[in-house]
Amino acid sequence: MKITRSSALIPLVLAAVFSLSALVRDAAGQATADFSTLEATENAANSKPGPRTVPGRSIPVPNTASPELQALIAAPYRVPNWNANPKSAAEWKELINRVATAGATVQKTVREKLGVTMEASEIAGVKIFILSPKEIPPANRNRLLVNVHGGGYVYGPGESGTGEATLMAAYGGFKVIAVDYRMPPDYPYPAAMDDAMAVWREAVKMQNPRNMAIFGTSTGGGMTLAMILRAKQEGLALPAAIAPGTPWSDLTETGDSYKTNEWLDNVLVSYNGYLRHAAELYANGHDLKDPQLSPIYGDFTGFPPAILTSGTRDLFLSLTVLTHRKLRRAGVEAELQVFEGMSHAQYNFNPSLPEAKEVFTEIAGFFDKHLGK
Amino acid sequence: MKITRSSALIPLVLAAVFSLSALVRDAAGQATADFSTLEATENAANSKPGPRTVPGRSIPVPNTASPELQALIAAPYRVPNWNANPKSAAEWKELINRVATAGATVQKTVREKLGVTMEASEIAGVKIFILSPKEIPPANRNRLLVNVHGGGYVYGPGESGTGEATLMAAYGGFKVIAVDYRMPPDYPYPAAMDDAMAVWREAVKMQNPRNMAIFGTSTGGGMTLAMILRAKQEGLALPAAIAPGTPWSDLTETGDSYKTNEWLDNVLVSYNGYLRHAAELYANGHDLKDPQLSPIYGDFTGFPPAILTSGTRDLFLSLTVLTHRKLRRAGVEAELQVFEGMSHAQYNFNPSLPEAKEVFTEIAGFFDKHLGK
Repeated sequence: MKITRSSALIPLVLAAVFSLSALVRDAAGQATADFSTLEATENAANSKPGPRTVPGRSIPVPNTASPELQALIAAPYRVPNWNANPKSAAEWKELINRVATAGATVQKTVREKLGVTMEASEIAGVKIFILSPKEIPPANRNRLLVNVHGGGYVYGPGESGTGEATLMAAYGGFKVIAVDYRMPPDYPYPAAMDDAMAVWREAVKMQNPRNMAIFGTSTGGGMTLAMILRAKQEGLALPAAIAPGTPWSDLTETGDSYKTNEWLDNVLVSYNGYLRHAAELYANGHDLKDPQLSPIYGDFTGFPPAILTSGTRDLFLSLTVLTHRKLRRAGVEAELQVFEGMSHAQYNFNPSLPEAKEVFTEIAGFFDKHLGK
Repeated sequence: MKITRSSALIPLVLAAVFSLSALVRDAAGQATADFSTLEATENAANSKPGPRTVPGRSIPVPNTASPELQALIAAPYRVPNWNANPKSAAEWKELINRVATAGATVQKTVREKLGVTMEASEIAGVKIFILSPKEIPPANRNRLLVNVHGGGYVYGPGESGTGEATLMAAYGGFKVIAVDYRMPPDYPYPAAMDDAMAVWREAVKMQNPRNMAIFGTSTGGGMTLAMILRAKQEGLALPAAIAPGTPWSDLTETGDSYKTNEWLDNVLVSYNGYLRHAAELYANGHDLKDPQLSPIYGDFTGFPPAILTSGTRDLFLSLTVLTHRKLRRAGVEAELQVFEGMSHAQYNFNPSLPEAKEVFTEIAGFFDKHLGK
């Protein structure tokens, strides 16, 4: 094919291409189309039943969140955390350890700031941390919480995984056992669940399970649900309440917000980032839809009262509301709180966030209502 | 400028343009970019603090909603309802009446299907409809609900505005007074609120207000909240519970989902459609942030228990969760239910929707918990 160079033609062709599509954005990612152009383009693109077509957009930071949350909403994607794709066990470990070292340093500062103390220990051969507030209110003296941390079954080993337990100890005034469960690449499923259950089996001997709750965010939210399924199956005592925060209740790419909030959530960004790889690494060949990996496929009948938390920009917003609805349909008392503009699990990211205090104060109030003393 | 025709050049230039922008979509609105291209483009566009840049996308209908809801999610934009922009009072009336005539026919069918009867009447000079289920369960015999319909303060006059009252009568087993309040263009603010309050003042003489609730969706949700603010102000009895469904609690374009769910919600689509025009028509020069028009700016202290409903694709998702949070922060018992994939108020659109039955069954259960008998 003979190519005729003709620079005069290029602007014309470019103009034609750009006028064909109102969805082209400039280098800074700003939408170049005005409203009436978008109106016409989108009406045409959405004039027949089927998938929803939405234009590329630049979405402002909402002024309806606290200034602290606005800063988190405005933050860039966390590259390469969200899209990490380690090619070997060694690469996974390097990444996990790098993130964990930084995380442990942060957690030390947070504990000091909030007056929470931490004690490393072991229960049934499983490493744990006990987080205690400066003072435990009288109503909580005979209460005990168990936390399973988040991090896609890969992030959060050791002290780096104690953030949520610390916030709950501080804002809820509870003593919290944080389970440092084993994780891939060395320990895929079911190691994490085996460890969490081993701790639960012993913990119910330390305190009356009617005075206890289990909570966790993201992977920890999924594990919280899976723990109840397994406790039911094994005939173990159930806690008096649970708080699955934005739970990873389905390891497959199922749920509308995996698509609607893709690229909008600046924490997880997309299922096709590290999440997909972490799910496969953890499952290690097991069926991703096994209720022990994806508890949304389990039977929620007889579950303890639950309070669920998410955000409007959360990639797991659908997982959260689907889990909430399924709990309600199973006759379980279940409350839902959704925070404006919040991406995945951001209430765990900054202890000074007013919304973080609100999340844990609400959960603490819910536990107070349901736990014995 | 001399134009050299060279068809051989066009594919080359096109290829260059398309590779420059991962965000160009083909004529059918399908994203042409693959994941790794998007990953690179979006990482670059979201590498600094600031607005969130998201690419144009084609978002599939989720399989996590009921088949009936999937059909509503797949439905095209409702043109010209969503983007109507009447230029005169006469044009508004023509549009309103056309939509109302079709709506009234639908409502007749719905009542027949659900065994609900309707009686037109008047309270304090205000037109009302009384919706009654086939049989009122004994627990609800001394209970009475008041409904204020939705429709942006313009749609829904007469029988066309009785849909939600019908569903609540059918699925909740309650007797419902549906207020046919006056609307623009002839009757802007405060006519609608004056009518709703006139009915409330008389209704509390017909039944013990502790056995009563007020509910409404969208505009009706905003009015429900504004009615409580005004009842507090005027020292009137409050209902025992309220159900503001996806409330239009802020008539200004405030709240993250006005942007994040723009073009995704196939009912309202964008604030810059009829909504903006309806808000201005209704306000008629009044401050849009007056709590009687935008109750989110009011004081929620002392509000009755509330249950709020929204959907993950709802343009008013933020208004709903912001209202929920504000109620909770004011110490009000408030529950939230959010439905997968649902756009604005779609639970009112098809009485056969399993999610519609679920919404009203939940609200009825909440009312049952809080209303006297």
